[in-house]
Amino acid sequence: MFKIIRVNMSDLSIKTEDIPEAYQGLGGRGLTSAVVANEVDPTCSPIGPNNKLVFAPGLLGGTNCANSGRISVGAKSPLTGGIKESNSGGQAGGYLSRLGIAAIIIEGMAEEGKLYKLYVGKDKQELSAADDLKGLGNYATVDKLKRAFGDKAGFVSIGQAGEMKLPAASVAFTDREVRPTRHAGRGGLGAVMGSKGLKAIVIDPAEGELAPLVDKEAFKAAAKRFAKALQDHPVTSQGLTNYGTDILINIINEAGALPTRNFSSGRFETADKVGGESLNKITVERKGNPTRGCMSGCIIRCSGDYLDKNGDFLSKWPEYETVWAWGPNCEIDDLDAIARMDRACDDFGLDTIETGNAIAVAMEGGVKPFGDVAGAEELLAEIGKGSPLGRLLGSGAGAVGKAFGVRRVPVVKNQALPAYDPRAVKGVGVTYATSTMGADHTAGYAVATNIMNVGGSLDPLKPEGQVELSKGLQVATAAIDTAGLCLFVAFPVMDMPDALIAIVDMLNAKYGLSMTADDVTALGQKVLQIERDFNARAGFTAADDRLPEFFCQEKLPPHDVVFDVPDEELDTVFKF
Amino acid sequence: MFKIIRVNMSDLSIKTEDIPEAYQGLGGRGLTSAVVANEVDPTCSPIGPNNKLVFAPGLLGGTNCANSGRISVGAKSPLTGGIKESNSGGQAGGYLSRLGIAAIIIEGMAEEGKLYKLYVGKDKQELSAADDLKGLGNYATVDKLKRAFGDKAGFVSIGQAGEMKLPAASVAFTDREVRPTRHAGRGGLGAVMGSKGLKAIVIDPAEGELAPLVDKEAFKAAAKRFAKALQDHPVTSQGLTNYGTDILINIINEAGALPTRNFSSGRFETADKVGGESLNKITVERKGNPTRGCMSGCIIRCSGDYLDKNGDFLSKWPEYETVWAWGPNCEIDDLDAIARMDRACDDFGLDTIETGNAIAVAMEGGVKPFGDVAGAEELLAEIGKGSPLGRLLGSGAGAVGKAFGVRRVPVVKNQALPAYDPRAVKGVGVTYATSTMGADHTAGYAVATNIMNVGGSLDPLKPEGQVELSKGLQVATAAIDTAGLCLFVAFPVMDMPDALIAIVDMLNAKYGLSMTADDVTALGQKVLQIERDFNARAGFTAADDRLPEFFCQEKLPPHDVVFDVPDEELDTVFKF
Repeated sequence: MFKIIRVNMSDLSIKTEDIPEAYQGLGGRGLTSAVVANEVDPTCSPIGPNNKLVFAPGLLGGTNCANSGRISVGAKSPLTGGIKESNSGGQAGGYLSRLGIAAIIIEGMAEEGKLYKLYVGKDKQELSAADDLKGLGNYATVDKLKRAFGDKAGFVSIGQAGEMKLPAASVAFTDREVRPTRHAGRGGLGAVMGSKGLKAIVIDPAEGELAPLVDKEAFKAAAKRFAKALQDHPVTSQGLTNYGTDILINIINEAGALPTRNFSSGRFETADKVGGESLNKITVERKGNPTRGCMSGCIIRCSGDYLDKNGDFLSKWPEYETVWAWGPNCEIDDLDAIARMDRACDDFGLDTIETGNAIAVAMEGGVKPFGDVAGAEELLAEIGKGSPLGRLLGSGAGAVGKAFGVRRVPVVKNQALPAYDPRAVKGVGVTYATSTMGADHTAGYAVATNIMNVGGSLDPLKPEGQVELSKGLQVATAAIDTAGLCLFVAFPVMDMPDALIAIVDMLNAKYGLSMTADDVTALGQKVLQIERDFNARAGFTAADDRLPEFFCQEKLPPHDVVFDVPDEELDTVFKF
Repeated sequence: MFKIIRVNMSDLSIKTEDIPEAYQGLGGRGLTSAVVANEVDPTCSPIGPNNKLVFAPGLLGGTNCANSGRISVGAKSPLTGGIKESNSGGQAGGYLSRLGIAAIIIEGMAEEGKLYKLYVGKDKQELSAADDLKGLGNYATVDKLKRAFGDKAGFVSIGQAGEMKLPAASVAFTDREVRPTRHAGRGGLGAVMGSKGLKAIVIDPAEGELAPLVDKEAFKAAAKRFAKALQDHPVTSQGLTNYGTDILINIINEAGALPTRNFSSGRFETADKVGGESLNKITVERKGNPTRGCMSGCIIRCSGDYLDKNGDFLSKWPEYETVWAWGPNCEIDDLDAIARMDRACDDFGLDTIETGNAIAVAMEGGVKPFGDVAGAEELLAEIGKGSPLGRLLGSGAGAVGKAFGVRRVPVVKNQALPAYDPRAVKGVGVTYATSTMGADHTAGYAVATNIMNVGGSLDPLKPEGQVELSKGLQVATAAIDTAGLCLFVAFPVMDMPDALIAIVDMLNAKYGLSMTADDVTALGQKVLQIERDFNARAGFTAADDRLPEFFCQEKLPPHDVVFDVPDEELDTVFKF
């Protein structure tokens, strides 16, 4: 009863089809990765007509399960050249599920210079010209779309970066306040959308309904247990809720793992000024809302409204990784400036991690000094303008490193590293090195166990045990991303055995299955194998499952450690 | 008796050593590739301390054999990430051989910001500060070095591009007129030299002597037969001699294989204006020398002096690939402008093929219109200045394509294609796809048989037989590059059986061996295997042995052909 919508941008046709056998039982990341692996030539141009852009809500989407509304976006990545799935909060995932749509697959490529928008409603899908949106940022795009389609719809869009097909371009999703603040940020998926000539998707949930459940009572009971687990765990009920993800600044800094000045130190002198406690304080002082969910059904509510000095909305609360990328990594400790840059990235449609890294590498290359707030904002503005320097920066940290002859370039598979130095959090270092996605903390968040003692504890500075830790988390994450759950559910799942069982129970009750926890593990493994297979065909080898040389040779202060998990161990991650 | 000089830029030490067993019997490309494969970690940063830069004259260097003075330069490439050998004419190869030096290996990395020059004389090698050369182009660098060391020395240097560590940076070698006109152009070897803090090498041949010969008489006789073959073959005695390599413009245009406007057509409307016949005519009119060898012992003499309208020296005759890169590929038909850009590339130290392609891709991306002569010169000047746009262009065609969202990006292993469209000269297409070097016509010059009927003939438009053709040529070329012979000796070798036997006879007479032609083939295969093995360890797979998708899908006018050699056949090239 769920359908797949295929949109061909070459001939502007739209087809609705039943879910093919090969894709049944998959959702979210599992579905986007299966479509990309099955239907996209791994050696094609990522910005050509043979790539496909896939949107898919997860298996638990459209239900009353807490935090189940994530949406996965998949394609061959213009940044890494491998498979890519990047998922986002916002309203689109839940709305698609309520419309009975398992996936939207964008194929082909519009005629050069043409730009379209796609309307997706109950039993109606339509492409129309979007020339009036050309060159607009996501905020202005959404404003125009709201005027045309009302504020009950969910909007998916690209900004200038996506139209320019920059490898750092994101896909934006509107949140509950209908602002384009949630992003499938990583790997240049916005460039794929831009290459297809698709500026925006309007998802109109009118007449949509909750997803059907085979066993309503059983689902309801399991959903309640799951919600309780989220409400009982301190991370998902207090830490994230009160201080946002930015609570991590002081924790990671204390651990000596906060990459500072382009990964040259693990401690930032004035980290506290940009930490979650400061974020909360500023927000409360300015009478902003310090706790908001990014999508309906969220009970963690790790976001908030960042107001400027006049009390006007500036941006959603910048995530920890964003605060880090523009903050410590560029030697900047000004939250107002960081929020402005967060807003600019949301507007241009840029991955904050890739872009912040690109600018830190440019700073190391001498383009601007570290700590130059105005300089960083100026560089970011160049990207929006599409000047040559802007286009270079928007090509990502790897490209900037090559152009400026910088040797300390923190990328794996050409994707820039997030906000945890792999020398001082070795479990996440294993994830960065081996993930099918390029450097990605969300692919296997070993920080939880290495630093936060969630799911046990493991010394972050020692190489022993990190591969097992990362491996287990990568498998679990692939399953969570397939279910469409917010990754933060992993905190209770790792500490409370019933939380995982509740997820399995919900899947069984919704689909009339009798899966066990082992089946969920097998599902995660299957998704990873699909992705590994695509990457192998795209030309990836063990040599791509490595951190850049400098992490293994330059000691990171204050612990003076290098990354020393042996290569042979890294090569066992995907041996299930 | 031949020695290896190891120069460690980290501690500024210089050591002389006997040729280790593993490297014996190798010279030129065979030696540089063996050193790189044995001593360089394939996953290291190409611009870090763990890469090595190797200079090696060939096995026949330092003798009276005609055209035997090539010098190979090897390292891990900053452009491709794989192994790289690029060889050059000029005086350095012959001089090193006469000094009894089989190779110079540059290791480590100088302290940040320091710049050195290396003096290499008979029994004396010395590093000294080169701060006075900082930021100078190759012409000014050589002028200063000439004043210090006289004009009897050979000079090796990098321009601004190498100092900036740009992936398109070349290493320059002085010719017989002591001008920096000969380049190891491809793959960014100048960036490796720059990263090590080495601005120049002075090779002082004083007290050097001809290489010793085990059997002088036999050598002399074989050298005579070899010289006669060069003098008898029409390509090496007439075509190249009178019109330079640029003679190919009209031939390749006629064949419909002259890439025009960034590989969008195989015919350029006004090709004749930039062909070898025009080059010769302009040169004679301006009273320039229309035939010069680039190194002592050259009897082909394919170069000449390009004079400006006032009769002053502007550049050496631009090679065919240079004329093409700045000419038809950018829709430019002005030889004076092309010669100015050739001069600028020689001066900045840039690979003309990579840079011309980068600018053509930028033109397709809308930076300047095709055909804009002043625009092209302006873009090239940006590279010399090191502006952000210049650094992006100097990062090569692949980087420019990503930044400007261009889909038609003619690169293999991220190295830009030379001047023969692989759709219309399919043999060289096989070479581009599969060469260990990235797209490189010199690695297996199937144009000879496909277009010039040298070594037989094979329809360039049909896929059949191209793999066999390319394979044989890649093996033979690896051997020729190991001998240190100019690649143009391949023309007589392919047509006259005795030319190859003469080469074998010279090797045997020089070293007291009893090799056969089969042994030379085995040597070529061994060199290719060494290179393939390095690349495999660096992460290259069959997916890297492919042309970009568009060559297989977009038809090239006027023959309306695509590249259709099957992948499975490409994968047999290195099965010996």
